[in-house]
Amino acid sequence: MTERTMHLNAFLMNVGHHEAAWRLPQSDPAANEDIRHYIELARIAERGTFDSVFLADSPALRTDVGQRPATQLEPTVVLAALAVATERIGLVATASTSYNEPYNLARRFASLDHISGGRAGWNIVTNATAEAAHNFGYDELPSHSERYRRAEEFVEVSQRLWDSWEDSAELGEKSGAWADTDRVHEIDHRGEHFAVRGPLNVTRPPQGHPLLVQAGSSEDGKNLAAAHAEAVFTAQQTLDEGKAFYADLKDRALRLGRDPETIKILPGIVPVIGDTEQEAARREVELAEHVVHGYALQRLSDTLGVLLTDSDLDRPLPKDLPGEDGIETAKSRYTLIVDMARRDNLTVRQIIHRLSGGRGHRTIAGTPEQIAETLQHWFTSGAADGFNVMPAVLPEGLESFVDHVVPLLRERGLFRESYSGLTLREHYGLSRPANRFTRDRRAAGTSGS
Amino acid sequence: MTERTMHLNAFLMNVGHHEAAWRLPQSDPAANEDIRHYIELARIAERGTFDSVFLADSPALRTDVGQRPATQLEPTVVLAALAVATERIGLVATASTSYNEPYNLARRFASLDHISGGRAGWNIVTNATAEAAHNFGYDELPSHSERYRRAEEFVEVSQRLWDSWEDSAELGEKSGAWADTDRVHEIDHRGEHFAVRGPLNVTRPPQGHPLLVQAGSSEDGKNLAAAHAEAVFTAQQTLDEGKAFYADLKDRALRLGRDPETIKILPGIVPVIGDTEQEAARREVELAEHVVHGYALQRLSDTLGVLLTDSDLDRPLPKDLPGEDGIETAKSRYTLIVDMARRDNLTVRQIIHRLSGGRGHRTIAGTPEQIAETLQHWFTSGAADGFNVMPAVLPEGLESFVDHVVPLLRERGLFRESYSGLTLREHYGLSRPANRFTRDRRAAGTSGS
Ligand SMILES: Cc1cc2nc3c(=O)[nH]c(=O)nc-3n(C[C@H](O)[C@H](O)[C@H](O)COP(=O)(O)O)c2cc1C
Ligand SMILES: Cc1cc2nc3c(=O)[nH]c(=O)nc-3n(C[C@H](O)[C@H](O)[C@H](O)COP(=O)(O)O)c2cc1C
Repeated sequence: MTERTMHLNAFLMNVGHHEAAWRLPQSDPAANEDIRHYIELARIAERGTFDSVFLADSPALRTDVGQRPATQLEPTVVLAALAVATERIGLVATASTSYNEPYNLARRFASLDHISGGRAGWNIVTNATAEAAHNFGYDELPSHSERYRRAEEFVEVSQRLWDSWEDSAELGEKSGAWADTDRVHEIDHRGEHFAVRGPLNVTRPPQGHPLLVQAGSSEDGKNLAAAHAEAVFTAQQTLDEGKAFYADLKDRALRLGRDPETIKILPGIVPVIGDTEQEAARREVELAEHVVHGYALQRLSDTLGVLLTDSDLDRPLPKDLPGEDGIETAKSRYTLIVDMARRDNLTVRQIIHRLSGGRGHRTIAGTPEQIAETLQHWFTSGAADGFNVMPAVLPEGLESFVDHVVPLLRERGLFRESYSGLTLREHYGLSRPANRFTRDRRAAGTSGS
Repeated sequence: MTERTMHLNAFLMNVGHHEAAWRLPQSDPAANEDIRHYIELARIAERGTFDSVFLADSPALRTDVGQRPATQLEPTVVLAALAVATERIGLVATASTSYNEPYNLARRFASLDHISGGRAGWNIVTNATAEAAHNFGYDELPSHSERYRRAEEFVEVSQRLWDSWEDSAELGEKSGAWADTDRVHEIDHRGEHFAVRGPLNVTRPPQGHPLLVQAGSSEDGKNLAAAHAEAVFTAQQTLDEGKAFYADLKDRALRLGRDPETIKILPGIVPVIGDTEQEAARREVELAEHVVHGYALQRLSDTLGVLLTDSDLDRPLPKDLPGEDGIETAKSRYTLIVDMARRDNLTVRQIIHRLSGGRGHRTIAGTPEQIAETLQHWFTSGAADGFNVMPAVLPEGLESFVDHVVPLLRERGLFRESYSGLTLREHYGLSRPANRFTRDRRAAGTSGS
């Protein structure tokens, strides 16, 4: 094994990331709400010694339900079920900072960390669509900067709550005290968005804090990641863009006083695997044939905030699109699509096909060797610490990645042969965070030891 | 079997409901956060063909952590784990209407219902302590009537969200539509507390709605129960009080146009089981010997809103306690304790011992025959449709109930020999609710069928 090895996350979505995956003959159109489907996927990923599985989320019905399986089981309860059905793999769920209360969410993730024996992670998102806002009393989506301000405070409150019980504060002395009251703390937070007294009613999670994951690549998103994230999911179309993002984010972390090694950057890839190049290409074509253009046009219109119709299909994007500053929804995804279209001179039809596999994530169609080669290249060129694997079709795409790509990565000394750690932090090579109350108490000299 | 059979719920709390249970030699003081403990308990209850297991909750650290295991895994994630670890038993979790958003909670319960194949139930509570309010931005506990007004609106929004997908709106036609957009509805709720557009992003739960459970017996609590609850947990000290509560609640339901059969009333009982009366008494004494009076006095002081000290131990309660109208916390529990103390002329020390087993629920110490006899008597006298079984010590108290009391109830034709239904509603003999949007659509004649 070389010293530095890569990290792999399996992004589980429905019957695959490709928007038309559910229309294939082998796909189960009801799998999106079937817990057995997610258990099967998590077990496949665990067989492949992936660091983690991951579930995305948005608290709204976001898409045209006629066109695609649009419902989804709430991820934190799915994680609890997966915790019982797996042994070692990390379990990451998305939850919104815009539409939750920190006490409730910090507690759920602490509980998940206990239930899974230290395998829980939280993908911190602000949610970029008005549909979600409408389900929580807002007439309009709160502004991008307001959402990220709330996210920042939300994360800080959560961290304080996880620390509100010092490690081993529970004593369990049957003839004396169950816990040491001196090591259980109110947090007394009063901020712009939240007032939370604490302490949490769950002891400190096995990992100290669940793993913190972040996935928005706007300026505000990168700052949140640099301050708090330990794993970062990102969509990067080209190696150069990937390297620039990687260097930028590591540098931001460094400037905030962090060791850049403690923030793992995982670009997404959509592998389409064939025994031969021809077979991989055939699979791509099969998927493309199932794309419904009207629907894809509408989704692209929503993302870009312009109305595109059939007559635009064979034209380039309009020239007068605003810059990212004028966007209040998902800023970085907007920029990625516009840049990609301009760079590669794409028509709207071509954009739609590029986005159909992974909504902006890079699709790599090829043989297992070609895919392993590309991953190695990104990994050794300073563009990635690992990858967010987003199979176009599930479970088959994950199975073939585990059976055919993972062995090649192992042969090259790039990926673990078996789990060496027990917790998600251990899989990612990250240490357990110190407890701020323990530190303050020791600094104040109030501890006997 | 007689026609009418009883329903049994196992109330799982820590290592038992008795406040000193954790101090017994056989108890594991860390079990409160150990998912394996809850899985073991749920499997024991399932072996006993209980209708359901139940987890209480409050989003705050509520008690003196030196005196008792005080932390608790968040119940909805625990339920998801139990769903995967059991097959048939119903799974009821408590969640607060005061400190959640309806979209999030309705979605989690819908997800739990899908994950468990129709076995989820929600115990609707408003939370009666200021500690919880302090974790959610409030300086003071919102008033009792305000909390129940919010609860009423919360339940209505949740029901509309569960109905927002009509049954079988998902079609899964690969060459056509995934879902029938005409049968997926925005709810467009705008009320005093919530504005929620919908639709939910989870299809209608297998049970239509998860089972709705309620557990506050104040005037407002009974009205909420009469309007919405399908199972009611309640603390009743005497048969007469139990009969009066039962008749009152069934009558309220009737006056709201409901069939009184569709609301099942389950008083709590704390069984302390011995092979002989002497052994049961010995167990009670052993538990009593572990009670810490200072702690129990403080809890009683909190509940009654008066300061009681050691010097009060051998006196009756103060005479000048206010009526229930003056109480803004847990009204019905307050009244139960004051009434019990006056009726039985109890000193504070005696009150403490009465409350130590089940916080106001009736303790029955005796042989399996004596316990079965008491349950039958309450069941046939119009005081109960079943019982909320709250073992003083867990798992042993649940095991002996399942192994020794359940067989006697079966012999008497009072309890099922095996599960006949698949869902929690089927266990309780309750029908699946009709969908209000289907009804409205049919009434408007917009449906072809
Ligand atoms: C791999 C990946 C997963 C994501 N998952 C979610 C998600 O589950 N929910 C969500 O609202 N946004 C998700 N996002 C989007 C971002 O978190 C963010 O909402 C969006 O990019 C806007 O952020 P930005 O404005 O900072 O770019 C994801 C992004 C990536 C790259
Ligand atoms: C069996 C049972 C279980 C209860 N579980 C909870 C609970 O988990 N959380 C909670 O806040 N209150 C719980 N309660 C208390 C009531 O729901 C309610 O909060 C309290 O009695 C005050 O309601 P009231 O003012 O209507 O009497 C429970 C009550 C009973 C009888």
